[in-house]
Amino acid sequence: MKALVYEGVETLTFRDVPDPTPGPDEQLIRISAVGICGSDMHAYLGHDDRRPAPLILGHEAAGVIVGGARDGERVTINPLVTCGSCYACENGRENLCPTRQIISMPPREGAFAQYVAMPPQNLVTVPDHVALKKAALAEPLAVGWHAVKLALEALHPAMDQSALVLGGGAIGLAAALALRAMGVEDITIVEPNDARRAFLNDICLQKAAQSATGQYSIVIDAVGYAATRTTASQLACPGGVMAHIGLGEDMGGLDIRRMTLQEITFIGTYVYTAQDFRNTAQAIFDGSLGDLDWIETRALKDGAAAFAALRSGQIAAPKIILDPWA
Amino acid sequence: MKALVYEGVETLTFRDVPDPTPGPDEQLIRISAVGICGSDMHAYLGHDDRRPAPLILGHEAAGVIVGGARDGERVTINPLVTCGSCYACENGRENLCPTRQIISMPPREGAFAQYVAMPPQNLVTVPDHVALKKAALAEPLAVGWHAVKLALEALHPAMDQSALVLGGGAIGLAAALALRAMGVEDITIVEPNDARRAFLNDICLQKAAQSATGQYSIVIDAVGYAATRTTASQLACPGGVMAHIGLGEDMGGLDIRRMTLQEITFIGTYVYTAQDFRNTAQAIFDGSLGDLDWIETRALKDGAAAFAALRSGQIAAPKIILDPWA
Repeated sequence: MKALVYEGVETLTFRDVPDPTPGPDEQLIRISAVGICGSDMHAYLGHDDRRPAPLILGHEAAGVIVGGARDGERVTINPLVTCGSCYACENGRENLCPTRQIISMPPREGAFAQYVAMPPQNLVTVPDHVALKKAALAEPLAVGWHAVKLALEALHPAMDQSALVLGGGAIGLAAALALRAMGVEDITIVEPNDARRAFLNDICLQKAAQSATGQYSIVIDAVGYAATRTTASQLACPGGVMAHIGLGEDMGGLDIRRMTLQEITFIGTYVYTAQDFRNTAQAIFDGSLGDLDWIETRALKDGAAAFAALRSGQIAAPKIILDPWA
Repeated sequence: MKALVYEGVETLTFRDVPDPTPGPDEQLIRISAVGICGSDMHAYLGHDDRRPAPLILGHEAAGVIVGGARDGERVTINPLVTCGSCYACENGRENLCPTRQIISMPPREGAFAQYVAMPPQNLVTVPDHVALKKAALAEPLAVGWHAVKLALEALHPAMDQSALVLGGGAIGLAAALALRAMGVEDITIVEPNDARRAFLNDICLQKAAQSATGQYSIVIDAVGYAATRTTASQLACPGGVMAHIGLGEDMGGLDIRRMTLQEITFIGTYVYTAQDFRNTAQAIFDGSLGDLDWIETRALKDGAAAFAALRSGQIAAPKIILDPWA
């Protein structure tokens, strides 16, 4: 098959690789659409020790099952492979499974390829009326969904729900869409990039600003740098909740004195539970996350150019979807 | 009356001051016992801008009501004065009241004095079988109680409850006692000071260690320095909860990358709600916080010497109680 292989810092090659060999209980999926994630960019820049070259990146994928009882079924892929039997898996917190794997990280190759092999329980059926390129958004949308769910669970029920989302990339937008789907009406996204901010306002119909003031009961940090954490910890209102998704910088930024004196809760949030993934997919299917017309589609064979364009800040759309067959 | 007045950095003077003048709805209380808090030490060292000299410090007090319908009633004092009508007060989160005041911080003088004036709703009746010097522990014990309550509420119900408490001063010990009172059995206190650690093990019958390894579902940081936050964020287990009480250093220390990847929740926690204070007092009265024989009593007139001894690390007991009449 053809795949886009990460071969070293800022080097991606579209070339022939062996087809994946499904394990005894796995399904082969013909990939129709696969998104580029910020973590793929991080790996491409050589900043992720967990993703050494050579490696096929990509973990936001949808496609069609090939072979077996479900042959021909259109599916979106939960890329998180977990044991199913540990404390975390048995309590619906699969994302905390100590042996969790994700495709695009050894030992599992990713989905910037024509085929991938997955356990069947990771495959969520996509109804015919939903395009697979939109179904491929289930993964990034589930990241935002999970973060928002944790934040709302932690928020005191008597508090007004006003939300600030830092970062208007796919995860920030996903958080904003999840907030609205879960009933929060007052949502502001902070996005400093002019083109992206205009896209959020004009195409995604969000309220996006260059910077923020005021106080918010919910702050979602979808960037994860020291500077965004400083903003988040200063704009969370007393008794409010911050959900922190990003992995930009490892330490620093939080105004811990203020968080202590004002009882602000910080929730580290990583990917999603299996139920969150299914609920997000359902929300895509029933339209409660909007029409999802904020993707730009390119051929996987042109993936290197897409990464370069993203890297240089030329892309206004929050998500690029690659087509392995174009 | 006599009071111990903070007159400048490391300067405390026991001298005559005017008697407090109760406001129209306030009660006068003759103070029988008042504890020295870490925050008093912080102010004494000139490190608290909120407590400028000259000022009467002290906010952990119990005594006897003087005058009015409740004349002669033995009470312990909730030192937090709140408006009663804001969102926070109306929802049982008085500690987040935007106009909250605490005695020992302007505009309210503290309880290192023979008398103090307080609103009657801040006074909790102490039964005859409880010594007022133990009832004065309600305030620091309520700080630990509130932190533990928030941590347990945030903890996933399926998780094993194992707790690490960083710091074996009064607040750390209070957290350990509250954990046990709320049903947590596996509790380790980390206390590097040899004399204090021995006191915790031998007198307080706690499990106190010089340092800790392992993983804990609940970590209480009762110190609040960057170094303790590093320890806390590394020893909290995946999906675990940190409650952060201390105000040692304003920023730094948290391993935010790990907290994000392992979904660790950080809760800033400050003082207590009015209900937590009452519940803590009740737990003192019914014995569920132990016999509280970990106090050392001195005369308020010798307060300056007590602060100096505390400052030089000579005190093993977690709490010094001062008597304004000795």
